Amino acid sequence: MEDKLMLMIPGPTPVPEQALLALAKAPIGHRSGDFSKVMADVTAKLKWLHQTTNDVLILTVSGTGAMEAGIINFLSKGDRVLVGDNGKFGERWVEVCQAYGVNAEVIKAEWGKALDPEDFRVKLEADTNKEIKAVIITHSETSTGVLNDLAAINRHVKAHEKALIIVDAVTSLGAMNVAIDELGLDVVGSGSQKGYMIPPGLGFVAVSPKAWEAYKTANLPRFYLDLGKARKDAAKNSTPFTTSVNMVMALQASLEIMQREGLENIFARHLRHRDATRAAIKALNLGLLAPDDAASASITSVVPPEGLDAEKIRATIKKKFDIVMAGGQDHLNGKIFRIGHLGFVGDRDILTAISALEASISALGYSNFTYGAGVKAAIEVLNG
Amino acid sequence: MEDKLMLMIPGPTPVPEQALLALAKAPIGHRSGDFSKVMADVTAKLKWLHQTTNDVLILTVSGTGAMEAGIINFLSKGDRVLVGDNGKFGERWVEVCQAYGVNAEVIKAEWGKALDPEDFRVKLEADTNKEIKAVIITHSETSTGVLNDLAAINRHVKAHEKALIIVDAVTSLGAMNVAIDELGLDVVGSGSQKGYMIPPGLGFVAVSPKAWEAYKTANLPRFYLDLGKARKDAAKNSTPFTTSVNMVMALQASLEIMQREGLENIFARHLRHRDATRAAIKALNLGLLAPDDAASASITSVVPPEGLDAEKIRATIKKKFDIVMAGGQDHLNGKIFRIGHLGFVGDRDILTAISALEASISALGYSNFTYGAGVKAAIEVLNG
Repeated sequence: MEDKLMLMIPGPTPVPEQALLALAKAPIGHRSGDFSKVMADVTAKLKWLHQTTNDVLILTVSGTGAMEAGIINFLSKGDRVLVGDNGKFGERWVEVCQAYGVNAEVIKAEWGKALDPEDFRVKLEADTNKEIKAVIITHSETSTGVLNDLAAINRHVKAHEKALIIVDAVTSLGAMNVAIDELGLDVVGSGSQKGYMIPPGLGFVAVSPKAWEAYKTANLPRFYLDLGKARKDAAKNSTPFTTSVNMVMALQASLEIMQREGLENIFARHLRHRDATRAAIKALNLGLLAPDDAASASITSVVPPEGLDAEKIRATIKKKFDIVMAGGQDHLNGKIFRIGHLGFVGDRDILTAISALEASISALGYSNFTYGAGVKAAIEVLNG
Repeated sequence: MEDKLMLMIPGPTPVPEQALLALAKAPIGHRSGDFSKVMADVTAKLKWLHQTTNDVLILTVSGTGAMEAGIINFLSKGDRVLVGDNGKFGERWVEVCQAYGVNAEVIKAEWGKALDPEDFRVKLEADTNKEIKAVIITHSETSTGVLNDLAAINRHVKAHEKALIIVDAVTSLGAMNVAIDELGLDVVGSGSQKGYMIPPGLGFVAVSPKAWEAYKTANLPRFYLDLGKARKDAAKNSTPFTTSVNMVMALQASLEIMQREGLENIFARHLRHRDATRAAIKALNLGLLAPDDAASASITSVVPPEGLDAEKIRATIKKKFDIVMAGGQDHLNGKIFRIGHLGFVGDRDILTAISALEASISALGYSNFTYGAGVKAAIEVLNG
């Protein structure tokens, strides 16, 4: 059937009609007074969403561009940083550091496991000369669905006093609690096609006063990604370079929807969907990659048992039910599939996905479950 | 009146309904087979529009991001380059070079005048050691409406043999003839909200084999803007980082419209609109900033006579007729206004703009013209 696609990938996520219709409005001038009003309103709403009084800057980039900006604006060549790497995105921030000659010390965990906050404590405590300039971590690792313990790692960074904490919140912001001011997070990057419920094309970076201090002496080259320029123009409700006007209009629409739902409800909904999905996967006797105590509320990675091919499951559920789930990346390709329950996703969508999954694995000859067992487990969680 | 805005600025430009409706479609996955097909189709159409068999890469950035990528991927720290500067954008590419430690030798002309190709010839001929790595020029200078003589400057670059030519074609591509293969242009940057007839949010860079050779040894740091990564994924009809899916869909729609019109007709239409607008401005006894022999077909900068305030004209035509024209930038602020006739603009729009301009200057007490003189002059050009 045409035009009946249902996205359950970790981005792009489904987009509400109000945001789609805002996208379709003829653009207005990005230097107009009317657009400045939109920028002022959107910026205020972004600060609400980020739970911060810090600057939250809007860039016309993907999440990677936002994170690169969040790294290169606050560091200099040769700076020592700790980078957590337990998946494709952690790995990517190591590569960004390397591209700019930043001395990245990698703290690894296996894909599917959480970073160990102790590893950070040890390195940070040993650094009595305060040489470590920043700790870069991925909160919700999109490639595995693992949630790293941001609060615990952040406590160790705070104890160090000198280092900045730079957080990839691409699949956590607007879905899970990323309490920027409460935790004192210095730099937080995210992208529009995730919790924000709009298409890809905008990136966001929240920046603390401590990070702005570091900016003054940071010497890595940048121009388009220069956050100082963005900050200067944001003070005038503008952007240094032409922003994606229609996307900002869509963002305004989606942030209005989010404000009506409220942060607490948004976070509770994502947790409920995580728990319902995980309960269902267990009831179907399929494996889960991330452990219960480190599971992202945005993405659930499923490990099918021997003989049940992850890519075949994805192909079947796409063909039979027009539901798109994500595959595994890099060495997990073919070994897992990932269910995105991020952004504009309701309880109904979880039941839909689980029931369609039951039908699909059954069609593939998998019989190690009772029809309806997944749906039953999900209902029990959803009904509370 | 609400929702009756008419944009006659040099970007964002008006967007056809088909492109707006494509923007409003629910996004599909950027890693899906369906999206790869769109990327393949769009890339083929972009090559058509660029008149090239070179790579044409799509980035999620504004025009500035595209140009920065076009500069930093092919140069190394300390490299000597010549940069033409006769307006805000020429100035910006000097700043990009400086931000990265590239040794930019600036070839200036006054704002409103064209760069002198002779200045380039002299420098290039004197460079017998072939130290000059690139010549960076802005084709259509958006801040003034001046069209630099790309063909003449390019001839001198070609005679040098070693230097790359890097062209800001942001307000010329898709409006004026930028014959990449015929001229042998190495790097050409542009942005979506101009001749492409879609909102801001995508940037494009065309790259020649000679530029790819330079890429191999170029050592400026980059990650998100790394064109080598973009090229690698473009070969698989994909992008290294999540692209702005909905904008690519809109681009596909607008490129289809452009192909139906045909390149010759598009170029002829822009020239006709330039000539009609300039004839009208002359008939109204208003001044023109750019000379006849160096006038962009995308933007006409008007210099009102003493006593007639450019900003008041803009405010009046906006208030009375909901037409947005652009002001002057930097030291030209308040001294000129700029009429954009770029992208999705028909003959009707030119008559509308000129007649509304007549009414507005008349309302401001300007009487040094006969009612209808501007429209008459425009009609004479449009009717050919």
